[in-house]
Amino acid sequence: MPAGFSRLARRTEDPAISWLMHSALARPKLISLAAGFTDNDSLPLEHTRALLNQLLRSRKAGRSALQYGSTQGDPALRRLTARRIERMDGRSGEASTDAERMIITHGSQQMLYMLTEALCDAGDIVLVEDPSYFVYLAILQSHGVQARGIAMEPDGVSIDALRARLELLRRSGDLPRVKLLYVVSYFQNPTGITTSLEKKKAILALLRKYERAAGHPIYLLEDAAYRKLRFAGKDIPSALSVDRRRDRVLYVGTYSKPFATGARVGFGILPEPVFTAVCRIKGNHDFGTSHLLQQLMARALSSGRYDRHLAELRKRYAHKASIMREAIRKHFPLEVQWEMPRGGLYFWARLPSRVSAAPGSRVFETALANDVLYVPGELCYADDPTRPKPVHEMRISFGSASERNIREGIRRLGQVLHQELTH
Amino acid sequence: MPAGFSRLARRTEDPAISWLMHSALARPKLISLAAGFTDNDSLPLEHTRALLNQLLRSRKAGRSALQYGSTQGDPALRRLTARRIERMDGRSGEASTDAERMIITHGSQQMLYMLTEALCDAGDIVLVEDPSYFVYLAILQSHGVQARGIAMEPDGVSIDALRARLELLRRSGDLPRVKLLYVVSYFQNPTGITTSLEKKKAILALLRKYERAAGHPIYLLEDAAYRKLRFAGKDIPSALSVDRRRDRVLYVGTYSKPFATGARVGFGILPEPVFTAVCRIKGNHDFGTSHLLQQLMARALSSGRYDRHLAELRKRYAHKASIMREAIRKHFPLEVQWEMPRGGLYFWARLPSRVSAAPGSRVFETALANDVLYVPGELCYADDPTRPKPVHEMRISFGSASERNIREGIRRLGQVLHQELTH
Repeated sequence: MPAGFSRLARRTEDPAISWLMHSALARPKLISLAAGFTDNDSLPLEHTRALLNQLLRSRKAGRSALQYGSTQGDPALRRLTARRIERMDGRSGEASTDAERMIITHGSQQMLYMLTEALCDAGDIVLVEDPSYFVYLAILQSHGVQARGIAMEPDGVSIDALRARLELLRRSGDLPRVKLLYVVSYFQNPTGITTSLEKKKAILALLRKYERAAGHPIYLLEDAAYRKLRFAGKDIPSALSVDRRRDRVLYVGTYSKPFATGARVGFGILPEPVFTAVCRIKGNHDFGTSHLLQQLMARALSSGRYDRHLAELRKRYAHKASIMREAIRKHFPLEVQWEMPRGGLYFWARLPSRVSAAPGSRVFETALANDVLYVPGELCYADDPTRPKPVHEMRISFGSASERNIREGIRRLGQVLHQELTH
Repeated sequence: MPAGFSRLARRTEDPAISWLMHSALARPKLISLAAGFTDNDSLPLEHTRALLNQLLRSRKAGRSALQYGSTQGDPALRRLTARRIERMDGRSGEASTDAERMIITHGSQQMLYMLTEALCDAGDIVLVEDPSYFVYLAILQSHGVQARGIAMEPDGVSIDALRARLELLRRSGDLPRVKLLYVVSYFQNPTGITTSLEKKKAILALLRKYERAAGHPIYLLEDAAYRKLRFAGKDIPSALSVDRRRDRVLYVGTYSKPFATGARVGFGILPEPVFTAVCRIKGNHDFGTSHLLQQLMARALSSGRYDRHLAELRKRYAHKASIMREAIRKHFPLEVQWEMPRGGLYFWARLPSRVSAAPGSRVFETALANDVLYVPGELCYADDPTRPKPVHEMRISFGSASERNIREGIRRLGQVLHQELTH
């Protein structure tokens, strides 16, 4: 950016996701295993139409939907959302206060953005899973916030690695700059890893231990974007259920992925004073999420249509994931490591570490030349100078591709990998 | 905000608008002449329902509407919007490039926010009309940007005042911190003033003259939020039509007010490199405005329903404005100065300068005790230390109140003013 632009504008890079989405939209024959789009065939056209008809046939409800609401968001939607999360968590007696400290946003992405604005100045530090959600990393980068990666284990961040990092930061006097740990706790984007309840407990205890040296709270930002997209195993309670004083967890969720990505409704449950800070910022952003979309979601929840849709969606994703698993088994070289996810939209594949799958690598370019796109794992790693960025991984999504394209895409990708590994 | 929060969070005050909206929502008997809500009876329930039914009955269109789009926004909506603006301006041959440099936002408010993020660092200076739109002032305040007010004349900012201010800033060496002039160019919020074409030309010429000393472009940010809500007089071409090199005007518009505030769709037409900067920031905010809302608006435009609705809306507002005018004539003391607006949602009333209408003043409190709310004019003035804030004005909206409440609200307000002026 030339003179006259802000520091934020100069730091804000072209986000990886636009480039990937653009590639997907621009090459009509491309099989995209990259985009986090949801399945096109599964989109709830009939539900949405029925709900909007109900809504707009009622003069009272319809007018309310087409008018401004409050900055915080629709009370009915907040109540319904809080009750569901409480029920999933196996908690009780907290839903009404959760609804009061909830803010509805234009997708959960907006909540991640505003939380960064509320808590972080340039030069601050945020701890992230290593790897993590790349658009969140882009938000941090644009705000001049330094991301530090915490190594992952099959059930979430390594507590030892987290402790070692906090200890290092304490010794170097950098703890006052540490604001939060960001965890995509269910079927993580990109690895598919789910954080266990034990880890959530251990994380909160550990963060709290270092708060004195930090001089302020160190929050756990729990991004539960994929929680509802579970198709195997049992749900795990959120960090809200282990935050006894209810003052350190920032819980963020969304209806985009489980219902419709075109109707962007997300939310956050925030303790004070984060709640107040974010609500004020939201007032300046847009003084409230589209009331029409909020009322649509509230009706989807209260009518049971959301649940019916979700049940279908889970079945569909389970099926697509199993198709991808079979294709990977059949076509990928044995040296490639991967695991069957239990939810979400992604497989995470690890090539032998000598093989690069990064943008511009032979693997990436050959795949693209064969009209198949994946997300290079490198893009999911923070710019953390304390370790080299792994480049041998790939995020492969079964979300938007058709079953046929999943099979064909994986077949092509397998060919590229076989070629490369025998190179 | 306590330790651990960002500078932005510490600077972000509880916005005046939430407090006012809250007062309106919380007191059921209150007659609010404050809120910029649109008229409830005028909301396009039938149009919206018909359009959404069409949209969601088509598998192809419906799926597209319920899926992510691009960060920049729906091409059809951009094309339709650019063509209309071009036609209104009496320009030709520019619509397709305007569509390419347009970004669709979640209300025009989001565009104002992102432009501030893209162009301004803390300590920078933005020139604003004196008075101006208070939520924009709040955005500037939260980013640590200093707003400097330029006195208004009946056809827009005083060119002499603008020149004097720029000269002053040049002499003090502060021009490098000046990023733009913000003008609500049609039926301004709060004064109802419309900027003449001559003034737009003069402003652009003047700003350009000072660019060399600034070391970067000084943009004219034209907020045309109320342009469509004209009910008397002729439309005036936008600043786009006098920006010969097409590189200094940031044109911002919205479909919230002329169609439905509950379906938040706004937009900006931006020259490079502002376009690229804002598009990247939008990627981090939410990677694109709800596709469902965008497609709804595109269909509203292409079907003619938007125009039919707008024609009704203008008639309605013309009628409500005339009712308010009659009520003011009948009930307000003669010492109160005001003018009949030719569009928008507001009357701007000036009491004798000895009388305060500020929050906490006797006028404001007595009005509230009588269940009538207006926006104290003081809230619309920037924190500009170079002049005292006028406190004797009030913004009175005929947008959301019913005809009966307009009459009754103005009657009560008139009583309060008579009482106060004979005090």
